[in-house]
Amino acid sequence: MNNILNNIDKMRNDAIRIFYKGIEAVDPYAAVKRFCKLKKDKFMIGDKTYNLSRFKNLFVIGAGKASAPMAAAIEDLLGNKISSGIINVKYDHIVKLNYIRQFEAGHPVPDKNGLQGATSILRLSRHAGLDDLIIGLFSGGGSALLPLPAKSLSLIDKQNTIKVLLSCGASIHEINAVRKHISMIKGGQLSKAVYPATLVSLILSDVIGDDLDVIASGPTVPDSSTYHDCMEIFYKYKILNKLPESVIRYIKAGVSGKIPETPRKTDPAFKKTYNFIIGSNIDAITAAEQKSSRLGYHTIILSSMIAGDTRQAAHIHAAIAKEIIKSGHPINSPACLLSGGETTVRIHGTGLGGRNQEFALATAIDISENKNIVILSAGTDGTDGPTDAAGAIADTYTIIRASSLGLNPYDFLLNNDSYHFFQRLGDLFITGPTGTNVMDLRIILVN
Amino acid sequence: MNNILNNIDKMRNDAIRIFYKGIEAVDPYAAVKRFCKLKKDKFMIGDKTYNLSRFKNLFVIGAGKASAPMAAAIEDLLGNKISSGIINVKYDHIVKLNYIRQFEAGHPVPDKNGLQGATSILRLSRHAGLDDLIIGLFSGGGSALLPLPAKSLSLIDKQNTIKVLLSCGASIHEINAVRKHISMIKGGQLSKAVYPATLVSLILSDVIGDDLDVIASGPTVPDSSTYHDCMEIFYKYKILNKLPESVIRYIKAGVSGKIPETPRKTDPAFKKTYNFIIGSNIDAITAAEQKSSRLGYHTIILSSMIAGDTRQAAHIHAAIAKEIIKSGHPINSPACLLSGGETTVRIHGTGLGGRNQEFALATAIDISENKNIVILSAGTDGTDGPTDAAGAIADTYTIIRASSLGLNPYDFLLNNDSYHFFQRLGDLFITGPTGTNVMDLRIILVN
Repeated sequence: MNNILNNIDKMRNDAIRIFYKGIEAVDPYAAVKRFCKLKKDKFMIGDKTYNLSRFKNLFVIGAGKASAPMAAAIEDLLGNKISSGIINVKYDHIVKLNYIRQFEAGHPVPDKNGLQGATSILRLSRHAGLDDLIIGLFSGGGSALLPLPAKSLSLIDKQNTIKVLLSCGASIHEINAVRKHISMIKGGQLSKAVYPATLVSLILSDVIGDDLDVIASGPTVPDSSTYHDCMEIFYKYKILNKLPESVIRYIKAGVSGKIPETPRKTDPAFKKTYNFIIGSNIDAITAAEQKSSRLGYHTIILSSMIAGDTRQAAHIHAAIAKEIIKSGHPINSPACLLSGGETTVRIHGTGLGGRNQEFALATAIDISENKNIVILSAGTDGTDGPTDAAGAIADTYTIIRASSLGLNPYDFLLNNDSYHFFQRLGDLFITGPTGTNVMDLRIILVN
Repeated sequence: MNNILNNIDKMRNDAIRIFYKGIEAVDPYAAVKRFCKLKKDKFMIGDKTYNLSRFKNLFVIGAGKASAPMAAAIEDLLGNKISSGIINVKYDHIVKLNYIRQFEAGHPVPDKNGLQGATSILRLSRHAGLDDLIIGLFSGGGSALLPLPAKSLSLIDKQNTIKVLLSCGASIHEINAVRKHISMIKGGQLSKAVYPATLVSLILSDVIGDDLDVIASGPTVPDSSTYHDCMEIFYKYKILNKLPESVIRYIKAGVSGKIPETPRKTDPAFKKTYNFIIGSNIDAITAAEQKSSRLGYHTIILSSMIAGDTRQAAHIHAAIAKEIIKSGHPINSPACLLSGGETTVRIHGTGLGGRNQEFALATAIDISENKNIVILSAGTDGTDGPTDAAGAIADTYTIIRASSLGLNPYDFLLNNDSYHFFQRLGDLFITGPTGTNVMDLRIILVN
């Protein structure tokens, strides 16, 4: 414990070091290298071993914000054992690769380049045979980066459908059901295309609870929704007259059995599909925990699944920090409270900010005038809302410092203007793109 | 660990036993007896000792939902050493007392009886002299039970003022500032009335963070708000034309210095006032923790200060329970997660329920289809909203059982109708009045 000074500046530095240790653990390149090993011809992925000499071809496919560094790690491991490969990456996210072709594609709005890459990936997948091994590399953003509308539908049809669903109040599960049914890849259809080849999918999770069927819309995961469900959703939200006619016609054809259903759990393709999560929010938190413990803080991981309203989450984190000071529960100070997940900002105002900056501001208000507390909340991908910051850093003295600058923190909070609040204080946390994406990391230090 | 069966019924019983252990620890009678000891003439209260032989008279005053059992404990301890006493209690809450007179009074709406008791208490307080010791007994509800409007104001004036403040969106701190300035007792004025006698105040806390100036409106605690603040609040919310004229006239007289300010921290009265919190939410939680540990659960106290939106608090508690299952953080199962405080229900529907029942319902939805989880959320006073239940008990199978009865849990949640949901399932948690009141207790068991 003796290396902790009762010093807010030291604590702020500690929080930053803890954050970077967290994101290092989920660096896509490092995660693939940690999760996969090659010993002679034996390719070990997690607890599985694949004897490469038994396969004729080794193909690599993938899509997602982190697919380029994941591919680089696979190339470093397997080199010229790779027959060929294709991945879709975000514009300006390509890296140097020797065996795997990269398509730069649109995100978050899918575009023609993405479509072209997706078509090539599907062709390669269908081309694979019984004796081939395909390695899939998927991460957040993979849904938009890998757009392939079902036959007779256009990219515009698909986009308009999602827009209507988003604005009618449909749940994310309902949106995903439709999304999978108007795609040729999502909802396990990529597994089906690859079959009878063996598919090993390496997945960097950017969703709460690491639900495999949600990450990148689950191209290698069985679907449980049906065309019938899609029609019910259209009726439920009374959006039949708002949707593209071609989409309704297509879904109706599915209901009447004229086109095949998305693959179920029982589909033989999934007997040859192996999905591995190689990194997720809890991995970042666990690494952060190790660092904070080494720095001398009693550390507690609250949950990697914190969702819901940002300010309410802030109130609860602040309540825990204050309890640490008051009664030494849940842990004694010097304490580090860690949580992850992704909250949602309720928009009341016209300001600029992101969920992490708003979290830091709301928490700072709650803990003002307490003992030394530092809050760092930031997106692991280095972005937070429509800003150039990853998040913000705040402490016990933030509100007092703001007052001395004539800033009313409540006004900024009510206007959702956390960015300008922390900008004035010099407390934006700016990292630039980190290359990974496992939602947010919140670090609260109490001393 | 061997006494935990992987059995939901056993876990439900455990949750109930843990709850009762929690409220036993904050039983007002027991709390006074634990906190105060008498050895010959030495009356020990916490870490202070009062030599009773040095005092001429020993008076007892007080108000609150728990003041009767607190008074009974004081009578058991001090018996005929008590010169006389007066306390205000809720209707039907009187107990057998020999030395202390009880006024039954209105709550939550103050009434004439309360006014009569408050007048008598103030008279007794002013009568006390330099050599007298006064024991104050305060608990939640003490504000409404001890109404004494400032000179020239009526009870109706006071009530109307609070009503206007509640409906204009003023914060609880703003409401309290006004409340104290139109009272003759609140905001430290009782201490001032007692001075130069010695005042020892025993307080059972029913507020987040145990803020002494909030419990029973802080009759024995310095005030920091001013008449000027009150006028600013009236202007800020533009309610000057809605408030009783007599109240505005009174506050203006205060601003111009014609009537004295509420006593500040520097007032000599507070040199002779000693406030002791004899029980609060964290005490109930700590006792619950001991019980759950004895029952074999790894136990964690989250915070006794959980406030804000009920459903959001439910989401975060559920996220922690799911993390326990997923990664063994913050603790390994079998696990017990404890929290306290008091959340707020957002009213969207027309149903019946309370914050604890809504918490149990929202959490049950989030944790359905997980491993064995049990949720018990209840008010320590035995009431939850306008219902006869203290709260509700739910588990991993609640949602499935509801479905088999044809109940849609989302419909009940959206209609704020948690009472009828749990009534149908037979899962209301009904205790009757417990005699204490330290906000809510939430118990989540995971195995």
